[in-house]
Amino acid sequence: MTDLMTPDQLEAALRAIGRERYHDRHPFHALLHGGKLDRGQVQAWALNRYYYQSRIPLKDSALMSRAEDPALRREWRQRVVDHDGEREGEGGIARWLHLTDALGLDRAAVIDGRGILPATRFAVDAYVRFVRERTLLEAVASSLTELFAPAIIGNRVAGMLANYDFVSRDALAYFDKRLTQAPRDSDFALDYVKREARRPDQQQDVMNALLFKCDVLWAQLDALHHAYVEPGNIPPGAFVPEGRR
Amino acid sequence: MTDLMTPDQLEAALRAIGRERYHDRHPFHALLHGGKLDRGQVQAWALNRYYYQSRIPLKDSALMSRAEDPALRREWRQRVVDHDGEREGEGGIARWLHLTDALGLDRAAVIDGRGILPATRFAVDAYVRFVRERTLLEAVASSLTELFAPAIIGNRVAGMLANYDFVSRDALAYFDKRLTQAPRDSDFALDYVKREARRPDQQQDVMNALLFKCDVLWAQLDALHHAYVEPGNIPPGAFVPEGRR
Repeated sequence: MTDLMTPDQLEAALRAIGRERYHDRHPFHALLHGGKLDRGQVQAWALNRYYYQSRIPLKDSALMSRAEDPALRREWRQRVVDHDGEREGEGGIARWLHLTDALGLDRAAVIDGRGILPATRFAVDAYVRFVRERTLLEAVASSLTELFAPAIIGNRVAGMLANYDFVSRDALAYFDKRLTQAPRDSDFALDYVKREARRPDQQQDVMNALLFKCDVLWAQLDALHHAYVEPGNIPPGAFVPEGRR
Repeated sequence: MTDLMTPDQLEAALRAIGRERYHDRHPFHALLHGGKLDRGQVQAWALNRYYYQSRIPLKDSALMSRAEDPALRREWRQRVVDHDGEREGEGGIARWLHLTDALGLDRAAVIDGRGILPATRFAVDAYVRFVRERTLLEAVASSLTELFAPAIIGNRVAGMLANYDFVSRDALAYFDKRLTQAPRDSDFALDYVKREARRPDQQQDVMNALLFKCDVLWAQLDALHHAYVEPGNIPPGAFVPEGRR
């Protein structure tokens, strides 16, 4: 059994997990941001990542459905608003579709998830299920990857604009919003787990939840890298960029 | 809406899916059977595949828990017996541990799933959940990959014995059993879906269930291939063979 950490020690342990395991360290990101991908590969990334985006409000709603404290539900509700918007055409999901439109993907196919990698679906569904089934503390903790998001988003936007003539600032509007939303959300979640994880086993649960979420993100990039960076590996039924295979 | 097929047309459609999507077509299998992997890579395969094996009786029990017909439950129970054995040390799972032992893996680590790829867990858990949540017809249909297993097993045993001095006939005892078990099981499941899928939408469900299961198997090999065949891709926290990284 590990000892009880102070809240600040727990925060330090969580930040150490992010430094080692967050998907900004994945080689696919270096390729994406460094302009080393072609349009078809960026399409594959945006198509698969849409499935992740589309499931985020489901997992946030699942968390709300388990939170008995109205204050927690209200705080968390903002995440759903951020993704779904106040009306048709607004919110993060609509902004992601704006990106897939700009990349020339068929919107109906994106929304249906036609051609996404099975590994994307398996990883994302595992995340939604985790939030549905684990403790509320673990569900909150699994959102903590957002602590590490602002840095990657800054790099991404700058790198993609500098390197891809098929990507415009406008197409990347999703990320502008996330630069303010992610820190607000992760500050709240970090305070929550520092306050609520009062026993060593709960602190361990919190760390394991963050490790799990890092795996969810990493596995998605592994699958993209395998299928679309190395030649000849696109699995049967998955999206094939023009001119590939 | 597609037209109703005859039972034999449905069987032909299912066999066509297997020809196109079963994981015997995956490049990792060619490497495995062709002697192109080193001991560490075969260890990684056996370690990850253990997780799949270990979950098969859970999914078969889940199916039984939903089958109201005692005859179906009795038939299906044999699968659980095959995997779990009649007593400690018997059955398919014990035989798989015999293989991981022979490959020099730590048995406690294998049983705990220490170091398995997150993608393995996501794919296998998706399969168990599918059987728990979908219709009984789809649950039965998702087992139909066993129609295509005998050919791959024959190739595997011959190829591994011929090519790897660290693999013995005895270590591969698991597969000898499967050569008789898989055809018996798949004959039953095939008869079941041919009989029970009486509407076009049910026939479509059956085909989709088989496609899903092919994805589950394929995604596991994709993850192994990415992590252990191409250099530098082992995800954080995953098994690292001696001398790698």
